[in-house]
Amino acid sequence: MNKVLVLGAGQLARMMELAGTPLNLDVKAFDVRSHKVVQPISPEHEYGDLAQGIANADVITAEFEHVAHDTLAECEQSGKLFPSSNAIKIGGDRRLEKALLESAQAANAKHCFVNNKAEFDAAIEKLSLPIIFKSALEGYDGKGQWRLKDKSDAEAVWLDMAQFLAEAKETQGIVAEQMVPFDREVSLVGVRRKNGDIAVYPLTENHHTQGILSVSVAAPVNEALQKQAGKVFKALTEELNYVGVLAIEFFQVGEQLLVNEIAPRVHNSGHWTQQGADTCQFENHLRAICDLPLGSTALVRPTAMINIIGEDSVANDVLAIPSVTMHWYNKGKRAGRKMGHINVSADNKQELAQRLLAIAELLPKAGFPELHDFAVEYLAKQK
Amino acid sequence: MNKVLVLGAGQLARMMELAGTPLNLDVKAFDVRSHKVVQPISPEHEYGDLAQGIANADVITAEFEHVAHDTLAECEQSGKLFPSSNAIKIGGDRRLEKALLESAQAANAKHCFVNNKAEFDAAIEKLSLPIIFKSALEGYDGKGQWRLKDKSDAEAVWLDMAQFLAEAKETQGIVAEQMVPFDREVSLVGVRRKNGDIAVYPLTENHHTQGILSVSVAAPVNEALQKQAGKVFKALTEELNYVGVLAIEFFQVGEQLLVNEIAPRVHNSGHWTQQGADTCQFENHLRAICDLPLGSTALVRPTAMINIIGEDSVANDVLAIPSVTMHWYNKGKRAGRKMGHINVSADNKQELAQRLLAIAELLPKAGFPELHDFAVEYLAKQK
Repeated sequence: MNKVLVLGAGQLARMMELAGTPLNLDVKAFDVRSHKVVQPISPEHEYGDLAQGIANADVITAEFEHVAHDTLAECEQSGKLFPSSNAIKIGGDRRLEKALLESAQAANAKHCFVNNKAEFDAAIEKLSLPIIFKSALEGYDGKGQWRLKDKSDAEAVWLDMAQFLAEAKETQGIVAEQMVPFDREVSLVGVRRKNGDIAVYPLTENHHTQGILSVSVAAPVNEALQKQAGKVFKALTEELNYVGVLAIEFFQVGEQLLVNEIAPRVHNSGHWTQQGADTCQFENHLRAICDLPLGSTALVRPTAMINIIGEDSVANDVLAIPSVTMHWYNKGKRAGRKMGHINVSADNKQELAQRLLAIAELLPKAGFPELHDFAVEYLAKQK
Repeated sequence: MNKVLVLGAGQLARMMELAGTPLNLDVKAFDVRSHKVVQPISPEHEYGDLAQGIANADVITAEFEHVAHDTLAECEQSGKLFPSSNAIKIGGDRRLEKALLESAQAANAKHCFVNNKAEFDAAIEKLSLPIIFKSALEGYDGKGQWRLKDKSDAEAVWLDMAQFLAEAKETQGIVAEQMVPFDREVSLVGVRRKNGDIAVYPLTENHHTQGILSVSVAAPVNEALQKQAGKVFKALTEELNYVGVLAIEFFQVGEQLLVNEIAPRVHNSGHWTQQGADTCQFENHLRAICDLPLGSTALVRPTAMINIIGEDSVANDVLAIPSVTMHWYNKGKRAGRKMGHINVSADNKQELAQRLLAIAELLPKAGFPELHDFAVEYLAKQK
């Protein structure tokens, strides 16, 4: 039996345990807050510290990209970490991410780096307004993003940004990006095995509410777009000699896909694969890091995923809608927190839209502010 | 969160935990050998004895029908046991089972009860040869079944059976059944909620090897047969005021279905539902006993289940066949033991047959003696 240690003990580790158990994989997780190894679905069971976790594991992986660098180094030294610490770090630093996109020649928004006032001014010269400034490393307290629409606001934006940079503990920086007037957001989740085998899922259409993913829909897609996304996936993962699942978020502008960001891990926009694909992303990630043959990523039928944010229950009647599957994460209720998701499938897009609407009608507007409108629009598009 | 206690800590409890965790159900199991409550997927974690398990649970159910009667009584007294002890016992005593079939007017093979020599002789008079004699309660050491094909063997069969009865500790008995020259074996898995709602899965075709289920195939079925089976399910479960999943094994003789036996629980011939149905049998059982709306039992696509018996690994290449999902039970290797199963799906029956054949070609003949022939025949039937 292969023993897998996941860095991070949240819902992604939990779903890896659920997918790995039938494969006879023993999945444990390192909780980065308590510094204990735990069982993801029953975190009250502890299995020692990181060193013991590394020693006991055959393979180590991560469920998030903001793992402390010394933890990554300790894992990498064991020779068991997949993907590499390099790849994981890229997901946590927009400067590295942009450098990767450039070296792999993946189309993305026009951008430049800002570390001081001179570079800030240069960015405004080089890029057209509006510009979005994002901290290179994770922000804090909701800080770390600034939008500049009007040149007259530049001074105020810079002052705030300068203070943010001055207060940063790490070698923080800013990436300035020309904002893209995109038609929609899509993402590609795919998987690569050590031997170079690659399998990608169908492109997923994503809808965000207040910056958090609220709905993802997977349905048969435009082949040209799918091919375009697949080429980017191949280029990026080969450049990284990547092993495991990786997600790429794109802006679609006309018929072109621009990479928005990449996540070196299983991804929220791939949760639909639990019901909608031949093999789910969690199982495929485990297969890849355990060096097992990849599973088919084919779409079984149109499937949508609805995030449950800040709510710890939904009306039982939702379960009465055909092909609804609930996925709760067993987390304490907190505003803005991802508490679970709902997957729903159907034989065709119109039926899927109807089921989405039926679900939306049972869920409270407060917790799912844009779901009803999304479902109505999605249904209208199928007619 | 609903807390569920399963009587029995084998693979069915394990798969209930895997299906229940995303629903935020806390599934524990009572191990009838150690008399401890454990976590099914990590049985090293113990949670006290039966009394504590009952006190901690919101709902209690069983994964097998041979639960000690005092255990059932203790659970039933708590008011939390679903299905009832009555229904569970029927699965463990062929006399009660036959009585139920008669009172629900469910067609089954001609039969009578045998407790002594006079009744044995009467059975041979009443039923035509060949006759199969089955112990009413579970046999032991593989004993408990006798076939009588030729009247001249009657004396020898009776002597053996008389010794078996004399040695039995419980109030053992024998059911004599006229053997049915059936065309095939099929089963119906269905679920009933407290309020009387019923949902049944499509009929599944089963193939046994040496008395153990080896392959089940679910594909679109003859509507008249499905209706016939559904009527039997309704009659039996209403008679029992049943709550949960129940499986009925049938002999198909021409266009008629004769009940062979019933299992008051999730059933091996329903494992294909994990990949092939809208909602799997484990989730639907949990929904029913927790009084949640039943999930759709619709077939998503043709799916087969292959039991892994006595083997603790299979070639990794099996995973490379599209839509193959492995389900290992994490049990110690032992000849004749159910160690896991493989589910495989396809868009149509011909593709399913091809995938079955591809799997059979990768598995050892010793462990899967009839699988290859079954796959070849099944493929031939699709042409």
